[in-house]
Amino acid sequence: MAYELYYWDGLQGRGEFIRLALEEAGAPYVDVARREESGGTAAMMRLLQKAGDQVRPFAPPFLKDGEFIVSQVANILFYLGLKLGLAPADEGLRFAANGLQLTIADLVAEAHDTHHPISSALYYEEQKEAAKARSAAFLGTRLPKFLEYFEQVLQRNGGVWTVGNHLTYVDLSLFQAVEGLSYAFPRAMAGFAARYPGLAALHDKVRQRPNIARYLASDRRLAFNETGIFRHYPELDQDAS
Amino acid sequence: MAYELYYWDGLQGRGEFIRLALEEAGAPYVDVARREESGGTAAMMRLLQKAGDQVRPFAPPFLKDGEFIVSQVANILFYLGLKLGLAPADEGLRFAANGLQLTIADLVAEAHDTHHPISSALYYEEQKEAAKARSAAFLGTRLPKFLEYFEQVLQRNGGVWTVGNHLTYVDLSLFQAVEGLSYAFPRAMAGFAARYPGLAALHDKVRQRPNIARYLASDRRLAFNETGIFRHYPELDQDAS
Repeated sequence: MAYELYYWDGLQGRGEFIRLALEEAGAPYVDVARREESGGTAAMMRLLQKAGDQVRPFAPPFLKDGEFIVSQVANILFYLGLKLGLAPADEGLRFAANGLQLTIADLVAEAHDTHHPISSALYYEEQKEAAKARSAAFLGTRLPKFLEYFEQVLQRNGGVWTVGNHLTYVDLSLFQAVEGLSYAFPRAMAGFAARYPGLAALHDKVRQRPNIARYLASDRRLAFNETGIFRHYPELDQDAS
Repeated sequence: MAYELYYWDGLQGRGEFIRLALEEAGAPYVDVARREESGGTAAMMRLLQKAGDQVRPFAPPFLKDGEFIVSQVANILFYLGLKLGLAPADEGLRFAANGLQLTIADLVAEAHDTHHPISSALYYEEQKEAAKARSAAFLGTRLPKFLEYFEQVLQRNGGVWTVGNHLTYVDLSLFQAVEGLSYAFPRAMAGFAARYPGLAALHDKVRQRPNIARYLASDRRLAFNETGIFRHYPELDQDAS
């Protein structure tokens, strides 16, 4: 049976981390809210209100595997990783992978808050001054700290994959983080490949995986836009320090 | 061998979610950074810089079990939950527990950002105006949404425990979240027990567990203060809407 992915239509957002895992593995899935025939956004909202016998999710994305519902990106990837061959075989390394994925989740949340530092319920334009201050702190201090960390983890693991000795969902998520950051902050990310050669090589390697390349060229991959996590507002960008 | 918990000295912070699990289970552990004889903060900083053959953690808290290192609160609790009998026996429910724990992590991150909406590297006083705006949005919209969610999850599970049919680390973490929110936002939390009877009863039940009660009365439990996640700044508090 096909997996059912539930996420907002019209943006990559947090759902994209799940899509990349499903696409890399060639797993059958339905992107429920994006398809009229699967019930669209209304079907997602029904499950968010009342999830049958399951614990209902707090927010999208969530995944339905038969009757089983899993929510929160890192949790979904922990679950799917084993099923799709995208997790390390060693149990200890699976906890290392989950720790790394949660650190990516922290980076993603901080990237989101650069344009919404006060409230997700307000428009960007209503919090623009705070957004400028938060972006300056993010690009000046936090982003380099995260990228240096992942670069070091990658290099200490031999420089090819982030954890273990084959591709995992952590590599896919780092690819997506680099994609998003490059879209949102082209000035801050200029020279990225020279400063973080391992991450840049990993990004290229993931992009060239046959299933990923096919996915990126398909209409299933939405373009980045200003409703997602990674938004390009030139006034928030700045040169790398 | 005793578990080694690594977290900043002087505050409850994110380390407290781990301490409560270790204390409830009566598991032997060393709170490394708080003890001179275990090397104090310097021992923690050494592992943060270079963690031997393990993936080094991005930030505290992290747990060392023999040579094995696990980082990120939800990941540590996922790992410890099984070992300490604080996770559901059913595998599906363990993923439900992890999803709930990650939702608590989101709530905790948002509670932190009420006083640091711009940057953790700046003092609260330097971002006070943005903090007021973020707190108003948090207390007006986000906090009720989180609490209603957890109340509903609890009620739908029978009203006694959050997930499964015995106490889990999710219950302990919800106890701590309620403790912290009550300290930080006494006005917003006034009438909490009437509005969220299930959560209030759960909070009482956890507080009365013999091991938890002993822990809370010991000097191992630090008081809340204005260096932690949950800080009481009266100017950020407001009546429940």
